Amino acid sequence: METLRVALGARSYDVHIGAGVIDAEALYRPHLRAGRVAVVTNAVVAPLYLERVKAALARAGVAPVIEILVEDGEQAKSWESLERVFDRLLAARMGRDGILVALGGGVVGDLAGFAAAVYQRGIPYIQVPTTLLAQVDSSVGGKTAVNHARGKNMIGAFHQPAAVIADVGTLSTLPVRELRAGLAEVIKHGFALDAALVAWLEENMERLLARDAAALAHVVRRSCELKARVVAADEREAGARAVLNFGHTFGHAIEAGTGYGVWLHGEAVAAGMVMAAELSVRAGFVRAAEAERLRRLVQRAGLPVAGPALGPERYLELMAGDKKAAGGRARYVVLEAVGRAALRADVDESTVRDVIAANVGGASAAAAQ
Amino acid sequence: METLRVALGARSYDVHIGAGVIDAEALYRPHLRAGRVAVVTNAVVAPLYLERVKAALARAGVAPVIEILVEDGEQAKSWESLERVFDRLLAARMGRDGILVALGGGVVGDLAGFAAAVYQRGIPYIQVPTTLLAQVDSSVGGKTAVNHARGKNMIGAFHQPAAVIADVGTLSTLPVRELRAGLAEVIKHGFALDAALVAWLEENMERLLARDAAALAHVVRRSCELKARVVAADEREAGARAVLNFGHTFGHAIEAGTGYGVWLHGEAVAAGMVMAAELSVRAGFVRAAEAERLRRLVQRAGLPVAGPALGPERYLELMAGDKKAAGGRARYVVLEAVGRAALRADVDESTVRDVIAANVGGASAAAAQ
Repeated sequence: METLRVALGARSYDVHIGAGVIDAEALYRPHLRAGRVAVVTNAVVAPLYLERVKAALARAGVAPVIEILVEDGEQAKSWESLERVFDRLLAARMGRDGILVALGGGVVGDLAGFAAAVYQRGIPYIQVPTTLLAQVDSSVGGKTAVNHARGKNMIGAFHQPAAVIADVGTLSTLPVRELRAGLAEVIKHGFALDAALVAWLEENMERLLARDAAALAHVVRRSCELKARVVAADEREAGARAVLNFGHTFGHAIEAGTGYGVWLHGEAVAAGMVMAAELSVRAGFVRAAEAERLRRLVQRAGLPVAGPALGPERYLELMAGDKKAAGGRARYVVLEAVGRAALRADVDESTVRDVIAANVGGASAAAAQ
Repeated sequence: METLRVALGARSYDVHIGAGVIDAEALYRPHLRAGRVAVVTNAVVAPLYLERVKAALARAGVAPVIEILVEDGEQAKSWESLERVFDRLLAARMGRDGILVALGGGVVGDLAGFAAAVYQRGIPYIQVPTTLLAQVDSSVGGKTAVNHARGKNMIGAFHQPAAVIADVGTLSTLPVRELRAGLAEVIKHGFALDAALVAWLEENMERLLARDAAALAHVVRRSCELKARVVAADEREAGARAVLNFGHTFGHAIEAGTGYGVWLHGEAVAAGMVMAAELSVRAGFVRAAEAERLRRLVQRAGLPVAGPALGPERYLELMAGDKKAAGGRARYVVLEAVGRAALRADVDESTVRDVIAANVGGASAAAAQ
């Protein structure tokens, strides 16, 4: 097991990475308090891992726990399922001295993390991510949210977890489509922040797709390190943290335009990164050969390199509603080099339109499988 | 005009108190940003003060504003009205660079403050309190929330305002019942924190009921000072801040037991304080003469000195669900002297039961008018 510290002053916390860490009661114990413990998970993850988490908590002295199952998939990040979580917590009389455990992927983490952020004005939570996407991305940074019909992640909070327990052993049960979606965020961390990680991925993509535990642990650790560094410098996403949104402005438009859940988040980000790289080439920020390295790596990961044919106007409309719009003018996270992304407002809408026209109409997410 | 600073590090803010400050565009201007401005208010307050706020904002360079009217009364602090606020903000394309203005009483402030806390993971807001209760209490401290069917203020956040603009001139249009309800919190600040304020109130209660502007400004300023001092020492209500809940454990039970909105919050707190003081006498924490001073002052303010006859079991059940319960054991904010409240767990349930049996069955809130 390796432990990585996310340095955020009073809100600092540890990320524990390894095979079997989900069973280590010692990792839960320091965070348990006088009150109750609720595990939020879903019907896919519960049969696989809920008993192991409950057993670890029991060894740490907590039984019974409140078990809350939410829907599988993006639809769980709804106003209604959030309300159901609160109803269960209140019915079980959880007080302000309780703690939540988010057991599952990014959806469960976002939902449970936001529930913890606002339940009785805030209680702690432990992230136990069981997807590659959640392990490399959503469990570090404290961004929690639910969706709104008018946009993704529109209602949320910055609420850092008390700890993250990332068991790479749980990735053995992950559907291959979700494994690939997780790799999209690893690729993003490389292109946005770390040329060495890009080179490593070009060497080791097959090991990752074969679920080699050491290879997976490497990308989880490196991704968490990179993200933790950015988050520590900009906890509330005022500036530097925006580079983590590389591919996300196009990606969110793809998710919203096709209806949340049709494309996986990572699939949308993959196509979104290829589009953002193409935009960077056309705007003169990066060389075509560097964008081509991104496209090839996305392709090798089995991820889509083009968004769906929504039409340029629909893309622009969806992107204008994105929360990265400032004072009405859209900003884009562009690629300046392999390993360096930047947030820039000096991008012509006509160039964005050209990129959409050129990239769109390729394989659908499902067809890419 | 007087300006009081609430010292909370990076979250410090000013409270501006005086007659006519609602019109002072200079008080809004420093907080306006590149994005849109939304004023959240209700159909009672809007005809009285919305145009003045809009005119001040226009002089500060902002027009048009997004106008959002919520229901009047406690029912506006619902999950549904919160969702409607988000829907309006998103439909109007408010970005993360926008700001909310909460124009109204504590309900509008709590709702709009919580909406600001979680809209796109947090935007700033300005409090423009137009009730005595909001001016002396809810606009200082950053506690925001909505209610849940299972309890008051169960979903919320600590989110400090960017500024508070407390215009005592707006109290001229306040219904007398609400004026009295506001005085309950002033009395609370005196008994919990400041014996000199209690003596001042004993001298000047009639001036306050006659809406003497200087007297009102005095209690608003002194209440804000007292509350700001406590909040600065304990922003997230870990300990010291609990004394501000004097009368609130019984009070919340009264509000929940009668159905939110039947008793005004201040009325419930008034009766709750008398009950908490009686509990303090029976538990031997304070002398009967000091509790009697509280009862007489509550009575002179035209506030109820007894809770409704819900029955001891129902009271205890409602109080057990209160968020101040820790690990299942209820704690009570008791009176140790005039000007000194304290949070204590060494209170027998049988004593609480006796107090409820002895105090309950008096005048209803409506009958007290």
